[in-house]
Amino acid sequence: MGFHASSNDSGSVGLPQAVADLLAAFLGPRFSISLSDREHHGRGESYHAVQAPDAVCYAETTEEVSRIVRICADHGVAVIPFGAGTSLEGHVSALRGGVSLDLSRMTRIIAVRPEDLDVTIEAGVTRHQLNNYLRDTGLFFPVDPGGESTLGGMAATRASGTNAVRYGTMRENVVSLTAVMADGSVVVTGGRARKSSAGYDLTRLIVGSEGTLGIITELTLRLYGIPEKVSAAICPFITVDEAIATVVGIIQCGIPIARVELMDARTIQATNRYSGLSYKETPTLFMEFHGSTAGVAEQVALTRELAEQNGAFDFESADDPDTRAVLWNARHNVHYAVQAMRPQAKVWSTDVCVPISSLGPCIAETQEDIASASFFISTVGHVGDGNFHLGLVIDPNNPDELAEAEALNSRLVKRAIALGGTCTGEHGVGTGKMKFMELEHGHGVEVMRAIKKALDPKDIMNPGKIIPELRSGGNPEN
Amino acid sequence: MGFHASSNDSGSVGLPQAVADLLAAFLGPRFSISLSDREHHGRGESYHAVQAPDAVCYAETTEEVSRIVRICADHGVAVIPFGAGTSLEGHVSALRGGVSLDLSRMTRIIAVRPEDLDVTIEAGVTRHQLNNYLRDTGLFFPVDPGGESTLGGMAATRASGTNAVRYGTMRENVVSLTAVMADGSVVVTGGRARKSSAGYDLTRLIVGSEGTLGIITELTLRLYGIPEKVSAAICPFITVDEAIATVVGIIQCGIPIARVELMDARTIQATNRYSGLSYKETPTLFMEFHGSTAGVAEQVALTRELAEQNGAFDFESADDPDTRAVLWNARHNVHYAVQAMRPQAKVWSTDVCVPISSLGPCIAETQEDIASASFFISTVGHVGDGNFHLGLVIDPNNPDELAEAEALNSRLVKRAIALGGTCTGEHGVGTGKMKFMELEHGHGVEVMRAIKKALDPKDIMNPGKIIPELRSGGNPEN
Repeated sequence: MGFHASSNDSGSVGLPQAVADLLAAFLGPRFSISLSDREHHGRGESYHAVQAPDAVCYAETTEEVSRIVRICADHGVAVIPFGAGTSLEGHVSALRGGVSLDLSRMTRIIAVRPEDLDVTIEAGVTRHQLNNYLRDTGLFFPVDPGGESTLGGMAATRASGTNAVRYGTMRENVVSLTAVMADGSVVVTGGRARKSSAGYDLTRLIVGSEGTLGIITELTLRLYGIPEKVSAAICPFITVDEAIATVVGIIQCGIPIARVELMDARTIQATNRYSGLSYKETPTLFMEFHGSTAGVAEQVALTRELAEQNGAFDFESADDPDTRAVLWNARHNVHYAVQAMRPQAKVWSTDVCVPISSLGPCIAETQEDIASASFFISTVGHVGDGNFHLGLVIDPNNPDELAEAEALNSRLVKRAIALGGTCTGEHGVGTGKMKFMELEHGHGVEVMRAIKKALDPKDIMNPGKIIPELRSGGNPEN
Repeated sequence: MGFHASSNDSGSVGLPQAVADLLAAFLGPRFSISLSDREHHGRGESYHAVQAPDAVCYAETTEEVSRIVRICADHGVAVIPFGAGTSLEGHVSALRGGVSLDLSRMTRIIAVRPEDLDVTIEAGVTRHQLNNYLRDTGLFFPVDPGGESTLGGMAATRASGTNAVRYGTMRENVVSLTAVMADGSVVVTGGRARKSSAGYDLTRLIVGSEGTLGIITELTLRLYGIPEKVSAAICPFITVDEAIATVVGIIQCGIPIARVELMDARTIQATNRYSGLSYKETPTLFMEFHGSTAGVAEQVALTRELAEQNGAFDFESADDPDTRAVLWNARHNVHYAVQAMRPQAKVWSTDVCVPISSLGPCIAETQEDIASASFFISTVGHVGDGNFHLGLVIDPNNPDELAEAEALNSRLVKRAIALGGTCTGEHGVGTGKMKFMELEHGHGVEVMRAIKKALDPKDIMNPGKIIPELRSGGNPEN
């Protein structure tokens, strides 16, 4: 394996002519084989090489998705769903050619139900679009990965973000979904009841399946009332250890903190440069508290006490929306800020997540790797969940750097799994982390393989992702 | 279909002799073919007729479960997991004979990790055993179905209870699990990280699968700190409508109420008789609030205001543990209290769950059915989740009453599904609700069937549950 270029970058269309004809007739100008379209659709936001699909289909309804999949299924052509192209693990690579199914035009908000605290949307709606739409209802959707991702893509990768410590991830916040399966059939999973024991949890099975079992076309999501009171806080420390100890204390005390994010000194440096800010360049916690006025005051006081006990040398809280917006925009732009530290660079973002008690040891054991790396590395984390990212700022065309990054990531993942953690807290597996699946799940990979085979017997649904191929030697590469 | 007696109630052992010999040699006295053992293991707590297995195996370790399943798999013998026998939907019926695999001796608490707020246990631990064990740690496990169920059984049926409105169900509270699959292989799903995007969510797939995909032998569960302050409240109304309107208000205002339970006048009457209490015999909400002292005071004040606006004629709050224990014991014993209203009766407990905005309409539309029934019916509900139970107190040997109950339940389920709800909020499907699966899930049943077939190709894992058989006519009975 490696980072070889697309096998179809000559511009030739590898689709069977019959499929191209059927799709072109069906979709008209919404069927594209232009090179730029194709390359755009084989590219995420990370170091992975572009692997362009043979064609791009822009779908506008579930029925269209169904028909496109049916045409592809009839001819054994791969179908790769595409939302906003913000994926980090090569999820959209057309490893075996085929059709990129672009859902970004499916942006209808079908129903907002304030009385049930839920909303039904099409999969191409982005999280900003949704929250802008909700603005006047007093409700919001909390899951907030860094990019301007579509909610379909977020569900497909089981994304989370800064609010997960309080509100959960896409796992907890998808109530039900509509998916087009490998034969073109349409499934609506779950209902709108808050709980159900009626059979297998197909919603949770499809959330996180990265388009390999079905293509998510609609979602019903949980909403939350905008809290009466929101307070942010910035809290700098001398060492990362002190910051982590504070976070562990917050979680173990059961403080219902809404956000608690770590940025190390280098990340703050990158952020100051990128966002024109002047935060102290030292390990810092960015926090947010949601609740009633009295409740937030209580949370802030308790957190400040913990932070001071653990060596915080400042604790600045901010209630006004503008200061909070600056803070969280800076946090959400970290990926781009870190990338901007080096021209033409790409960020290889690691994504391990460990039990909270192992967060300190895991980060500590990783320090040596960070110190000896030949490139810039930032450390940021949704530390309340035990999840942190190293941002390895590499030249993706430099094989030595790629090899160094790969080795560093591999050591980190093995460390995290040995501590009871996971290779990916929120980015998904894609192609980038397939090689860790056996180590993390053992025989569970066989179970996943059996499910994949049962639901997609022709292996046309985003093939080559998540589940490593069986090798003749038995074990996948490690 | 119907409630026919076991096909093997003659006492004859239907196991292949080779299987009986292997299991007897392996388990010694922990392999039983006594009639009383077998009948006990084919019986839940509901109206369903006993369908005894051919033999009972008492397992003590995951490895033993694996070996038992392997022996059965080699000979195509059915395996039906058994915990405490508290199931309500015929989950433990040995419809096709086979072996009941009793996990109730697997009661080890393997590790409590207060720093990570989790615990790893064997599947036979009951919720009371767990909470008793945790007593000195300041932690508790919130999921609390009525019976003294095992946690393995609770996971297998995706159980919930009175705390779900705040703490979620087994879906949200199982971190990872160990399961023995249909070929005897052992899978450990997920890790201990709070979130992960590493592949298909096998944990959530097996939770709620009722032993049809794998047998849960170990669980890692989320724990919560015992709140600083706990306050209960009892709040009587003139009508059920007023009580429901109060609950809807509580949820829509985002009050983080820990428990909010409805008992109608008849249920209070039954409870007063059974538990020697003297609550006013009128529709009543039982509530509980968890949090800091100030937070609970705020919640109670806001809830009282909502209740009074909606016509509550009293609002009695109680902080002391004894009064709270009396209240919640009474609530947890409702099933037995209602059953005691009629000698030799069994309770047919309905279990629909609807979006909260549909709770009032759903209960209102059901009043006529309740009024015209020929037997006693109680109404209780985890109303904060939109989930309520009618307790139909029937003579299970009276075919007319069974038919009347079945028709009433059928109307109720169709009403709930039409409102976006589910046939079962927390009891599971078993055999009792299979006939509603097509109506509720449509093509989703085909997806479930494909998964079942892939993971249990010989159909030996609790066969005949959850997924209706394909009929020659296409549609299952309705």
